Amino acid sequence: MQVPKRKIINDPVHGFITIDHPLLFKIIAHPYYQRLRRIHQMALAHLVYPGAVHTRLHHSLGAYHLMCLAVNELRNKSVPITAEEELAVKAAILLHDIGHGPFSHALEHVLIPGVHHEALSLQIMQSLNAAFNNELSLAISIFTGKYHKPFLHQLISGQLDVDRMDYLTRDSFFTGVSEGVIGYDRILKMFTVADNQLMVEEKGIYSVEKFLVARRQMYWQVYLHKTVLAAEKMLVHIIERAREIKASCSSSTLNMFLNHSYNKQEMYERLFEFCHLDDYDVVSSVKEWMHHPDKVLATLCKNILNRKLLKCKLQTACFEETLVNQFRVKAAEALQISVEEARYFVFTGQTQNTTYAQGDEHINILFKDGSVKNISGVDNALISQTLSMPVKKFYICYLTE
Amino acid sequence: MQVPKRKIINDPVHGFITIDHPLLFKIIAHPYYQRLRRIHQMALAHLVYPGAVHTRLHHSLGAYHLMCLAVNELRNKSVPITAEEELAVKAAILLHDIGHGPFSHALEHVLIPGVHHEALSLQIMQSLNAAFNNELSLAISIFTGKYHKPFLHQLISGQLDVDRMDYLTRDSFFTGVSEGVIGYDRILKMFTVADNQLMVEEKGIYSVEKFLVARRQMYWQVYLHKTVLAAEKMLVHIIERAREIKASCSSSTLNMFLNHSYNKQEMYERLFEFCHLDDYDVVSSVKEWMHHPDKVLATLCKNILNRKLLKCKLQTACFEETLVNQFRVKAAEALQISVEEARYFVFTGQTQNTTYAQGDEHINILFKDGSVKNISGVDNALISQTLSMPVKKFYICYLTE
Amino acid sequence: MQVPKRKIINDPVHGFITIDHPLLFKIIAHPYYQRLRRIHQMALAHLVYPGAVHTRLHHSLGAYHLMCLAVNELRNKSVPITAEEELAVKAAILLHDIGHGPFSHALEHVLIPGVHHEALSLQIMQSLNAAFNNELSLAISIFTGKYHKPFLHQLISGQLDVDRMDYLTRDSFFTGVSEGVIGYDRILKMFTVADNQLMVEEKGIYSVEKFLVARRQMYWQVYLHKTVLAAEKMLVHIIERAREIKASCSSSTLNMFLNHSYNKQEMYERLFEFCHLDDYDVVSSVKEWMHHPDKVLATLCKNILNRKLLKCKLQTACFEETLVNQFRVKAAEALQISVEEARYFVFTGQTQNTTYAQGDEHINILFKDGSVKNISGVDNALISQTLSMPVKKFYICYLTE
Amino acid sequence: MQVPKRKIINDPVHGFITIDHPLLFKIIAHPYYQRLRRIHQMALAHLVYPGAVHTRLHHSLGAYHLMCLAVNELRNKSVPITAEEELAVKAAILLHDIGHGPFSHALEHVLIPGVHHEALSLQIMQSLNAAFNNELSLAISIFTGKYHKPFLHQLISGQLDVDRMDYLTRDSFFTGVSEGVIGYDRILKMFTVADNQLMVEEKGIYSVEKFLVARRQMYWQVYLHKTVLAAEKMLVHIIERAREIKASCSSSTLNMFLNHSYNKQEMYERLFEFCHLDDYDVVSSVKEWMHHPDKVLATLCKNILNRKLLKCKLQTACFEETLVNQFRVKAAEALQISVEEARYFVFTGQTQNTTYAQGDEHINILFKDGSVKNISGVDNALISQTLSMPVKKFYICYLTE
Repeated sequence: MQVPKRKIINDPVHGFITIDHPLLFKIIAHPYYQRLRRIHQMALAHLVYPGAVHTRLHHSLGAYHLMCLAVNELRNKSVPITAEEELAVKAAILLHDIGHGPFSHALEHVLIPGVHHEALSLQIMQSLNAAFNNELSLAISIFTGKYHKPFLHQLISGQLDVDRMDYLTRDSFFTGVSEGVIGYDRILKMFTVADNQLMVEEKGIYSVEKFLVARRQMYWQVYLHKTVLAAEKMLVHIIERAREIKASCSSSTLNMFLNHSYNKQEMYERLFEFCHLDDYDVVSSVKEWMHHPDKVLATLCKNILNRKLLKCKLQTACFEETLVNQFRVKAAEALQISVEEARYFVFTGQTQNTTYAQGDEHINILFKDGSVKNISGVDNALISQTLSMPVKKFYICYLTE
Repeated sequence: MQVPKRKIINDPVHGFITIDHPLLFKIIAHPYYQRLRRIHQMALAHLVYPGAVHTRLHHSLGAYHLMCLAVNELRNKSVPITAEEELAVKAAILLHDIGHGPFSHALEHVLIPGVHHEALSLQIMQSLNAAFNNELSLAISIFTGKYHKPFLHQLISGQLDVDRMDYLTRDSFFTGVSEGVIGYDRILKMFTVADNQLMVEEKGIYSVEKFLVARRQMYWQVYLHKTVLAAEKMLVHIIERAREIKASCSSSTLNMFLNHSYNKQEMYERLFEFCHLDDYDVVSSVKEWMHHPDKVLATLCKNILNRKLLKCKLQTACFEETLVNQFRVKAAEALQISVEEARYFVFTGQTQNTTYAQGDEHINILFKDGSVKNISGVDNALISQTLSMPVKKFYICYLTE
Repeated sequence: MQVPKRKIINDPVHGFITIDHPLLFKIIAHPYYQRLRRIHQMALAHLVYPGAVHTRLHHSLGAYHLMCLAVNELRNKSVPITAEEELAVKAAILLHDIGHGPFSHALEHVLIPGVHHEALSLQIMQSLNAAFNNELSLAISIFTGKYHKPFLHQLISGQLDVDRMDYLTRDSFFTGVSEGVIGYDRILKMFTVADNQLMVEEKGIYSVEKFLVARRQMYWQVYLHKTVLAAEKMLVHIIERAREIKASCSSSTLNMFLNHSYNKQEMYERLFEFCHLDDYDVVSSVKEWMHHPDKVLATLCKNILNRKLLKCKLQTACFEETLVNQFRVKAAEALQISVEEARYFVFTGQTQNTTYAQGDEHINILFKDGSVKNISGVDNALISQTLSMPVKKFYICYLTE
Repeated sequence: MQVPKRKIINDPVHGFITIDHPLLFKIIAHPYYQRLRRIHQMALAHLVYPGAVHTRLHHSLGAYHLMCLAVNELRNKSVPITAEEELAVKAAILLHDIGHGPFSHALEHVLIPGVHHEALSLQIMQSLNAAFNNELSLAISIFTGKYHKPFLHQLISGQLDVDRMDYLTRDSFFTGVSEGVIGYDRILKMFTVADNQLMVEEKGIYSVEKFLVARRQMYWQVYLHKTVLAAEKMLVHIIERAREIKASCSSSTLNMFLNHSYNKQEMYERLFEFCHLDDYDVVSSVKEWMHHPDKVLATLCKNILNRKLLKCKLQTACFEETLVNQFRVKAAEALQISVEEARYFVFTGQTQNTTYAQGDEHINILFKDGSVKNISGVDNALISQTLSMPVKKFYICYLTE
């Protein structure tokens, strides 16, 4: 393959994205990376926000672009970053989501129980590293947080990393929910490094507050939107029911993961197969199963495909068991299934989000006098103790006529 | 189903789209309409413009929104439009693309030879009309141009209709190619009606010129982009090869259309099956066929899935046969296939676009003195005779190592 | 004058603004309204944000546009609003800022001590009402909060009114500070009315939170930006010094207000003259006074015109008197003026902003069960007690070489 | 003055503009440059497009930003540009409009007859060069086209320079006329240099066409909008009448230029005074003259201030003398002035614009095979011979009751 020296990709969100190194071209051209084209970034959110059909590939290119800007900015402020480190951190961000399976978070821990997507990302990076003559070793060292300049890792994965900045901006753009707009360009301009830790300059405090509030809003308004929640739980139930009744499908790869439950080690030995799975395997199976003799499976599949979604309610208090039972009895009657089977159509659960998780690494503010403070500890902080508590909500999904 | 009285949908392109009539809810909730979620608006353009993954459903909602604005605007100018006509024209625009099959234009005339998507749209509307108690009769009359107020038809389908206005704006938005931006809001404000024909007010001339130039640019820069062209021709060849060697696939619906060649009438009897086909059937078949024993089919499928696309060149002159043959011999050697089979990897063709097609209905400008002129005939017209000629280009696609 | 039936104005912020009633045309065509073209919306903020040169006229047209949307939205929700009320509330919002003098807030209470701009707005409305045959009586009744439907007043002036929504959006747009973007279209869609009070629907909570945080950020990042603060205080000092030394200027109107200190009643008798004052009177006087023999006045004028601004620091604690004195001694030496006069160049002060002022009217959330809660009292509120306290900061301005 | 090392300015159009060299800081801090804050970029266009109040200073900062991007891009393509040349071309673009007087083009040749603003820009640059220790010598050499790398001059002043790219984008942004959007980022990416001449790569053809069409549209829809035209001619007549009747005003600088007619050499000796003139001198004089005893002057001034503008019509044919006379007689009666004086209120003229002026330097397209073609000569060119002819229109302005 003849590799171009420099390629420019149009991104409606960030403008032009420039790729200009052979290693980056190799990563992007690899089938494992191209697979991300076939995984929706926002799973089933498009059932509510029809524009939200962008892909993991698009997001990872966007995060890469923000990384380019961040590296430039830090260099302008005399933070030393070598050419090798620059390349490594760019490769790492391109690959940070490579371990996502079909429908990303919506089916995480369902298709592959017990393995987090970041663990898979790391495995895949190592497999690519072997294929790429160890050109990814430094990238892996940074990705795993072992490198002696933690700020490089923090740019990839932290409370204020380019990953979050891209997905908030991008998801906001494609859903049309303008409240998610975060002024990432200003935040990037405020990035600085002290003691090898990523910091934000004092005058960036308000932008960071805004970032946290935008994230809070996107969670409750979009990611945890009650109809999106219902749709994604229906998809989970489809996989679970298929497994329960040992339904098979034409996608041999999907079949393999449906019919076995691999432990981590076994999973790592099936990376190659995993890297052939994408949203298309799941959706075409759903299309097949619409005609499956099992009524539960067939109904779930027909309903999700035709967007006849379960109704969903969110509230602060737990739902009463008697209410749930009433709904189940009704559903059983309506569908002519057992009350036991009706739990596929009537169920409760809990969801939560934390505006600023204190347990994680802090967002540190560097003041002009050289002092450093956690953003929740500055004067007149918007992000106070209260916002560091997770907000929990209970939901119920049920069938309507 | 409990029908809401009014629903608001977020559209990143137009803002909020309002649905407020039971008939419109019924259309949108119908599985035939929901199927449009699973058809890419721009087929494989996302292989070059990664944001271009929006769907036919999203486009038809957008065109519906512009129709709402157009109707309002014309009423403000005292053009009489009854409530029935308003509903009908909105229903018709929602349904105008319902006849599109998988990958829209890219596979039109390939999967279903000899049947245009508009003919299928009409058939499906009629089938829905039967199901909806004839509530769509007026919509169909307008859609087919038989209604006595031609301007209603022209809003749906003409040189300056809401369909084109939406797709140019939307495709421009999702690709990030800002040159396609067309100021549709201004054009809508300039719409007027005389003698029941849709017209543009005199002061709208420059906006219309800009619209035609934006369309011209989108064609050459995006729709006919050489890499997009190559990818879409590869997809066509996949279908053709599958047919030639009678390859089958797990999607029974796709199989049915692969293995038979229906005439129009037979096709119309298989509308129900057609309405189950979408991009997922094609892509999951492509994934299957990667492992097909036929080397031609398997190679095409692997290459398109992993974005190893044929190289493509466009030029004004025809390509020399000897050049084509050289490329075929090379490809045959490289892939160890016959030169005859190599025509799946090396081929030429012709593509064209007309900035302003004179043969079609005109864009008419209404002057303040009441006179009417074709836009190509006004003083100092940008859109002169020359631009009414189609621009033809020849292309060659070939395999590189 | 021949009045058009309908006029459309291009607004880069909101798109097209439509004017369609003779009374509104009369208001806009009136010299008192046209004067708002010559008053900067953001006083001297353009010295830091060069795009922020938009005018009071532009803002009031924008607020009018949002009012049109709000009225439509409420009507869609069956809130009864008569045609008279609609016209009145539109007239009132157009005129809500008519009482602003040169440089708006920056010189309020300086040029006309003791008279708030809203009091002047009311006086001018009454004077126009007399000229317009009492066509503004209802508008005045709503503006003053006497009308029996308080929500109409709340749309004009409340914690979440169209005034604030327009200025945040507009100031954000023209400064380029994207953090001020507030999703006003979503907030408007969430407006509702209960017991004749303006409310926000439950699902609008996050948008309102975002609005309050955006406002908080715009205050500290833009409106109270230290350099803007310094420039505006310099302008105040120019007026004060001119008054102190009885400097006169060529603008006879400005002279009149410089040389007399009117009480409210006297002021109201000089409304006609007041309505001839604008930014141009002040700036051309500043240009004259650059050559004034008084060194304090001349220096202030030269420095502000040439953007040689005082340096400014903001902090939570009060500044030490000794520091202030040191700066004054230095300034006195540098400019060869007395230490007493140096207080024009070295001074301290206090500024404050409250994210959500509890003392004012509340922002009320209407829940689906019909209950109403102050936004600061809902579960997991971002806007807690702490944010209802004003944030105070001390500033010092001083001369640098 | 303590000079910062790097300063970032918020621009709503381009995002962040970075200034990072002491010479650039000195230019921007100079009173001559700061004066551009007080000159509207679009003269009186804001009377039709209320957002169009941006300044010459803002435009020149924007053009400077595009120059930074262009230099980067060309360097990426291995075009050799030294650090000295980079600084010089940036200084030159910052100063390219420094010679504009009050209301820019609207009063050019009126206040200072016979001296083009570019000639004044050059004089002022030379005067600054003397003050800046010859640091501007190279900038001046480039600005005047004498430097041996013509492409540097072409970036500042040519058919496709950063000046035009900025003002089209900026004027489009502030007026809200989206049709002026030109995709400057794509054009910049297509810039290249061959034989020291600025070229556009082959694949940039459509973007250049779009640029020329956008410019054409902005001329007819905005710059030559009939109401803007009327307003600007009224302003010209105010100056001419003031001169005719030897009216004086409080601005001594304006007085000086009103009462003398300097030849070029005399003008150049009064550069210092010229650099004190701005829009404020003109507007405050207009405000004074509203009360002037001369009825013609007073009426023109009152009308322009209160936006009671003359009516204007544009057409392809010349207006009949008899019509003009009828209007003059009417105006004379209405205002009680002589028919001779009525020519200040009723007058005709001619205006023109060329989409692509062949006489000027060409826009050259560099093809992949190394050949170069004028854009009007490429295959299927939109920009044909016809568009190289100026479009002429005649206008009449007249008084209505």
